Amino acid sequence: MQSTPLRGVLAPVVTSFKADLSPDPERFIRHCKWLLSENCGLAVFGTNSEANSMAAEERMMLLEVLLASGIPPSRMMPGTGCCSVTETVRLTAHAVKHGCAGVLMLPPFYYKQVGEEGLYRYFSEVIQRVGDARLRIYLYHIPPVAVVGITPHLVERLLKAYPDAIAGMKDSSGDWNNTKTYLEAFAVRAGLAPGFEMFVGSERFLLANMRHGGVGTISATANVNPAAIHKLYVEWNDAETNPEHQQAQLNVVRDVFASKSFPSMVASLKQAIALSTNDPDWGRVRPPLVELTVEQATALAAELKNVQGGLGILEARSSDY
Amino acid sequence: MQSTPLRGVLAPVVTSFKADLSPDPERFIRHCKWLLSENCGLAVFGTNSEANSMAAEERMMLLEVLLASGIPPSRMMPGTGCCSVTETVRLTAHAVKHGCAGVLMLPPFYYKQVGEEGLYRYFSEVIQRVGDARLRIYLYHIPPVAVVGITPHLVERLLKAYPDAIAGMKDSSGDWNNTKTYLEAFAVRAGLAPGFEMFVGSERFLLANMRHGGVGTISATANVNPAAIHKLYVEWNDAETNPEHQQAQLNVVRDVFASKSFPSMVASLKQAIALSTNDPDWGRVRPPLVELTVEQATALAAELKNVQGGLGILEARSSDY
Repeated sequence: MQSTPLRGVLAPVVTSFKADLSPDPERFIRHCKWLLSENCGLAVFGTNSEANSMAAEERMMLLEVLLASGIPPSRMMPGTGCCSVTETVRLTAHAVKHGCAGVLMLPPFYYKQVGEEGLYRYFSEVIQRVGDARLRIYLYHIPPVAVVGITPHLVERLLKAYPDAIAGMKDSSGDWNNTKTYLEAFAVRAGLAPGFEMFVGSERFLLANMRHGGVGTISATANVNPAAIHKLYVEWNDAETNPEHQQAQLNVVRDVFASKSFPSMVASLKQAIALSTNDPDWGRVRPPLVELTVEQATALAAELKNVQGGLGILEARSSDY
Repeated sequence: MQSTPLRGVLAPVVTSFKADLSPDPERFIRHCKWLLSENCGLAVFGTNSEANSMAAEERMMLLEVLLASGIPPSRMMPGTGCCSVTETVRLTAHAVKHGCAGVLMLPPFYYKQVGEEGLYRYFSEVIQRVGDARLRIYLYHIPPVAVVGITPHLVERLLKAYPDAIAGMKDSSGDWNNTKTYLEAFAVRAGLAPGFEMFVGSERFLLANMRHGGVGTISATANVNPAAIHKLYVEWNDAETNPEHQQAQLNVVRDVFASKSFPSMVASLKQAIALSTNDPDWGRVRPPLVELTVEQATALAAELKNVQGGLGILEARSSDY
């Protein structure tokens, strides 16, 4: 297995929408370029990107405009997992053809309790149909949303059959013991899968992940707080930088966005970008998500001002943003 | 609100696939015509149709070939609900444009715990974008699969805002008390929504539904046992036909297909059609579903032979099938 240049911090990039709810390529490109300048890789079309609220054509269009704007595919890990094997193949082949370094793949999530054999056949079918040696899949485990999850034995079978295509995993279970199980089984132990790249789905587990052989985080909050998260990623093994304290500070900022007093993480992140760019259009979400009310937006700003590192998130970005 | 000609028994039509897993229009048309001849309406592209395992283009292609084969759109209620509002609008507009009497609409099912307001906005957006007075939506409540469900207050809001577009509901909660709540609130009580059409998602509740003001059932088992289900639909109010006994017999047949010893209802139904048509190609499912093993297929046949009404399901259909 070859390692990819994706290790580190990636943002599941929030997607800007126009007033008619169509994708807004201009703001999207600007946000992606800012994230890259903050050392963030681009996990476009993830859960926090409202990817599943978009049609396949909208996702492919946005990927193409990003590439046309000069953003390197080597820093991209688009989400391509749909309920339908034909749609997943289409989006995955499109991403690989355009040189994306990896893809983040949800399991098919409509049918529940489908069992390991069915999921194994599904991923096998995708890999064989895409049929491209450049394909690097990061399996996406997010049971609180997809309900259908990935199991260690499924990963073991897939790695045996497709050691080049299965590159790693994003664990958004929110359960550190689950991440640790995968790290010990596939990332650390020699043999089966040297280099299996384990990302945690929240920077809350970044320090622990790095200490146990993980490679980084793909975290929603990287949309607004990329510098501080990247700093911990770089300094985790340098005791003089007090990584535990850095981790604690990241957690406090994350707590603000994940607060149950806001309708969703996606909406809170977009509202923070709207505030920091002085551009209310950024607050828009597609239904079934709802944006923050004026009162909630005021509360979010107040809470951010109250936490260390929060004020920087609210301050206007560089004038060329 | 106008009533539609869809009342009665509808089958969420199982979808035939070729060896390469592409949709198989020939077998699909034949099965649909047989269902019509058995007085079954066609709820194509439902859960048991593996609709969410297909791309939008595949669903639209199949709908068009059905219509081209002469099947009347007045007997069709295609499933059109996707995670993405743009895809749902596309499929819904396509169905309405082709004259389908109704559409069965899942709520957007990727994001969980989205709340009533988000779902209200989603359905509003779909209705306004489709913008066609012929649109008749049957809301699809199936929490065991979609997880995201429909609530009475959501229905109340939608009926107030869109009394013509919201035609009824399919309740696949498996909870009779839930169905009863909707019947009492919207179908029976005068006022708000005379004619709100309530279908149960399993024929197990058909007799109760008809006795409380419901209009029929959209049931997976109608793919294999349509005549007996239709008989109860016609005779439910005729004590001489012993509807309770009919209901009990339907339940026994359903229990065979829903048995946990088979991988899924979809796979069991397709296997039964494969047996009854002597056509093993019917057994095929798309991953993540898996077909029955040879042992399971043998067990299914044996169990059907053991229950009243089961043998008829296995006997070859008319030679022109």
